[in-house]
Amino acid sequence: MNILVLGAGQLARMMSLSATHLDIKVLAYDVGSKTVINPVTFTTTSESLQQAIESADAITAEFEHIPLDILALCQQSGKFYPGAEAIATGGDRAKEKALLDKTKVPCAPFKIITDRSHFLEAIDELGMPLVVKTCQAGYDGKGQWRVKSEAEIDAIWDEMSAFLQAGTQAQPHSIVAEKMIPFDREVSIIGVRTKEGDCKIYPLTENQHTNGVLTLSLAGKEKASIQAQAEEAFSKLANELNYVGVLAIEFFDVEGQLLVNEIAPRVHNSGHWTQQGAHVSQFENHIRAVAGLPIGDTNLLRPTAMINVLGQAHIPPQVLAIPGVTSHWYGKSAKPGRKVGHINVSADSLHKLGEVLAELADILPEQHYPGVMDTAQQLVLN
Amino acid sequence: MNILVLGAGQLARMMSLSATHLDIKVLAYDVGSKTVINPVTFTTTSESLQQAIESADAITAEFEHIPLDILALCQQSGKFYPGAEAIATGGDRAKEKALLDKTKVPCAPFKIITDRSHFLEAIDELGMPLVVKTCQAGYDGKGQWRVKSEAEIDAIWDEMSAFLQAGTQAQPHSIVAEKMIPFDREVSIIGVRTKEGDCKIYPLTENQHTNGVLTLSLAGKEKASIQAQAEEAFSKLANELNYVGVLAIEFFDVEGQLLVNEIAPRVHNSGHWTQQGAHVSQFENHIRAVAGLPIGDTNLLRPTAMINVLGQAHIPPQVLAIPGVTSHWYGKSAKPGRKVGHINVSADSLHKLGEVLAELADILPEQHYPGVMDTAQQLVLN
Repeated sequence: MNILVLGAGQLARMMSLSATHLDIKVLAYDVGSKTVINPVTFTTTSESLQQAIESADAITAEFEHIPLDILALCQQSGKFYPGAEAIATGGDRAKEKALLDKTKVPCAPFKIITDRSHFLEAIDELGMPLVVKTCQAGYDGKGQWRVKSEAEIDAIWDEMSAFLQAGTQAQPHSIVAEKMIPFDREVSIIGVRTKEGDCKIYPLTENQHTNGVLTLSLAGKEKASIQAQAEEAFSKLANELNYVGVLAIEFFDVEGQLLVNEIAPRVHNSGHWTQQGAHVSQFENHIRAVAGLPIGDTNLLRPTAMINVLGQAHIPPQVLAIPGVTSHWYGKSAKPGRKVGHINVSADSLHKLGEVLAELADILPEQHYPGVMDTAQQLVLN
Repeated sequence: MNILVLGAGQLARMMSLSATHLDIKVLAYDVGSKTVINPVTFTTTSESLQQAIESADAITAEFEHIPLDILALCQQSGKFYPGAEAIATGGDRAKEKALLDKTKVPCAPFKIITDRSHFLEAIDELGMPLVVKTCQAGYDGKGQWRVKSEAEIDAIWDEMSAFLQAGTQAQPHSIVAEKMIPFDREVSIIGVRTKEGDCKIYPLTENQHTNGVLTLSLAGKEKASIQAQAEEAFSKLANELNYVGVLAIEFFDVEGQLLVNEIAPRVHNSGHWTQQGAHVSQFENHIRAVAGLPIGDTNLLRPTAMINVLGQAHIPPQVLAIPGVTSHWYGKSAKPGRKVGHINVSADSLHKLGEVLAELADILPEQHYPGVMDTAQQLVLN
């Protein structure tokens, strides 16, 4: 069986590695260079996108910002999962908010902005500081503003206005303003849904971001009540989208109530811990679902943390000597801030995981791996 | 980093998959076709063996029956692990027996045969039925005889004699006769040793063979006393060979005493369970050791069984729906009896593993997957 992935980064790569032992071959379409490649070896094939679509048994995507013509081409093939609609929803905050509205899944109060009057109304209704985000494009903290005072309104509107005017009839631009709600932490849920509508959901993950980029995830410490909230949101959204494959939902935790922050119609960085922390990883389960195979066990095997490797060409080798540690490299050259790999850390209990993270924090500089020692200390104390 | 593997079968393939997430590239030299290939994609490179040796940071092997000239070439490079001597020992029962003698690691009484008088002495000293095996070549039950009565001696000697005469000065042939000792079961130990001489050893594995081929392995049910015997043998043999990488030792268990049956200087089919049953698999630990990286945790995560897929093009998809099951395919076409993949099965206890194996046995025909139901029943009863 052959699967084509739109996008040729580390997510396609890890899907490919998972697919290999299922006897499934993965090729990836690199939207930038418009070439079909092997996402593990990076060798280019001579296939065109059209040929790759024809020879694939199933097509999926590793990111949501895919040109509409390519989405349409894949959708026409009748073998694209989770499908153009789900991908477009993940790539457009206006569609995402409409879906949340429709399914009554809680999120922060928001307002869609397409002209200046909406912007002023949003400030009025939702208050300042106000978070304002472009609905289309935008990634890892880009395309966002924080309006903190009236003095900033004009300057920010100029930038917003430029974005709105850059829209086209085929792909109109809009902006969403969200009420800034002080939250305790960010968490996410990763689940998988089959063509028949069966769902399996991994344990909730707590995520730490630094400068808008995920730096550390932790799975295995959540209470059943909060897990149940996340699972309910997952089921409502996945069923409404008639979703097939892995879907990730990011939440703000506001005193125990989960508000959706973002939906990602794909495998997700905050699910990388599943490679060691669950019997079947998010990558394998995504491949299984889009291939029409039964999906696998999503239960927690052991408490597991994931630490992103950002812009580092190497990790100190002694990291691998610590029990429960696994490295995952993406085969990319290291540029400042670039996600080039991640480290998974598993232990038999949260307390032991804290001890192992403390060992790691002694080796990994805080500057490049923020939050490891803090997380270790919290786990050891609890 | 680049590693070259001599041999391009499933063991090289699984080493390559493990190496990828360590940021190590693996190429394989196919001794049959004399080409350098990617053992996952099977694409051929334009490199000669000599070029591949030069561009490799380390060289290793996935099998022990490698032509002497190739072994010598690799040895000269100074980066061949575990090295020509260890590989040659694994490929020659006479060298293996000499090593066991030297290290005083117990094995069944034996006698090396190079002419008919030795054969007759062996029958006299060791008794009938007598197991007789070629010391060079021979694999999975081939090149073996059982002498059960005097009437068979002449016919078997004719075949033995033909083998002895096929030897050359560079590679003389010999035969070993082993006293047939009724054993309770076959077990194996897999361990890894670094360049600095540190060893880590996996839990003992119980192995079931059908028609001389491994069909099922089980890890996680052994007592400390028998594990200690196996670990002592491992340490003595690995240290004597100044071994680097994964070494496998097969034993007969004779009323709780382990007698070495065979040594394999490589990752081993009876260690495939480590992909799910241990935090760091035998494949990753072998790569780590030959690459000079710290070796990883070999403790049992959960009791795990491995079932070989022999000559089957597919497994029933519902197998993947059973919690704790993982399939591993080798990308080979299915021919009768050919090892084309394996299934790992993990559970939180031996009892639960028995229940899962019973579920599997209902799906997998006994004819193609012998021993699954028997093993299930034993585990559930105990």
